[in-house]
Amino acid sequence: MRDAFHEELAHTSERLVEMTRLTGSAISRATTALLDADLALAESVIAADEQIDAIQRELDDTALDMLARQQPVATDLRIIVTGMRMSADLERMGDLARHVAKVARRRYPDSAVPPELRATVLQMGQVAERIVAKAGSVIAGNDVVAAVQLEQDDDEMDRLHREVFGALLGGSWDHGVEAAVDVTLVGRYYERFADHAVSVARRVVYLVTGEWHEAYAPEPARSATR
Amino acid sequence: MRDAFHEELAHTSERLVEMTRLTGSAISRATTALLDADLALAESVIAADEQIDAIQRELDDTALDMLARQQPVATDLRIIVTGMRMSADLERMGDLARHVAKVARRRYPDSAVPPELRATVLQMGQVAERIVAKAGSVIAGNDVVAAVQLEQDDDEMDRLHREVFGALLGGSWDHGVEAAVDVTLVGRYYERFADHAVSVARRVVYLVTGEWHEAYAPEPARSATR
Repeated sequence: MRDAFHEELAHTSERLVEMTRLTGSAISRATTALLDADLALAESVIAADEQIDAIQRELDDTALDMLARQQPVATDLRIIVTGMRMSADLERMGDLARHVAKVARRRYPDSAVPPELRATVLQMGQVAERIVAKAGSVIAGNDVVAAVQLEQDDDEMDRLHREVFGALLGGSWDHGVEAAVDVTLVGRYYERFADHAVSVARRVVYLVTGEWHEAYAPEPARSATR
Repeated sequence: MRDAFHEELAHTSERLVEMTRLTGSAISRATTALLDADLALAESVIAADEQIDAIQRELDDTALDMLARQQPVATDLRIIVTGMRMSADLERMGDLARHVAKVARRRYPDSAVPPELRATVLQMGQVAERIVAKAGSVIAGNDVVAAVQLEQDDDEMDRLHREVFGALLGGSWDHGVEAAVDVTLVGRYYERFADHAVSVARRVVYLVTGEWHEAYAPEPARSATR
């Protein structure tokens, strides 16, 4: 049987996984809202972000409470502090999904994404959904192998981000400056979303292995050319 | 006389202030590099970011060590956890200054900023420098009044950010898509820089007052229209 403290740690882990589900749903729906110019869906993503923020606040309170009452050391201490950082990453990912939804809302009834970039943005949304789902698996199972696989999704996101810049800067952009601004920002939001998912996974790896190699620095060293 | 624990807390505070100085210098030099297309200066900002990252790692180690050895509760616990969050904000501000410098490097020997936006970007750099200097004063003095004043700098940054979008979207942009992309990203970097400085200040306010009003949520509710 687990004691109350380890029950609380397990609960925190479950809530973090719940946050990955909510941010995954948010980025998925934000992508659809963006591509389909679906205002109601965009509004629902924007409104739902409060739920993610609330879980972070709850987890912060729990973490501070555990630190104060349990006086943990060594591994338990690292788990609690790392949990606080992961919830901050996930909260920020919720914000980024909301930012994508806000671009959709701003451009309604048009879509902010020109036809030749629809496939790329759709893939960015899918990669974002996949990477945060894997981050959830990593949290749930402390799965270091999945954490490494997730880095490949991040590489894929960087490739798609470069595709966006290729379309913008290839010399044949004829959608005007407003669309260029929107696409630039949206590309950045997806890239940052993936970066934070990578951070979440790397924090778990650090917890499990105790090693924080340069390759596992919180900010991915690789990134798109912009 | 202070005991060893409070010496360590004071040392952390000094190191956080040092981080504000370094990030302030970084954003100032990055702005000059951007406006003057100064490659050597851009490279120096990019290289110097490692120093900021190193201080964050050192502060994280110190914080974990204090949590494990001192088993703090109540205010001391909150100070340590808040310090970790502030150093994360400041580390990110260093990244954002580096991003600005990278735009300067990418566009060298040209400047990424068209003539009619030079004054705006110069001001964004100045506001960024000012806001992080105030964040440093807030940390050094636990000065809640300065924390409130700093919000006005953030309002000014939002106004400048809207000016950037005004120039981009006003219908008279004739600098092409590449410049539009660069200016969009640079505007976002300055805005995020200021947001993190606001977070730093709000965290101090939270520590001092114990109140975390909606108005002091980590992410500023106000923001530019994009």
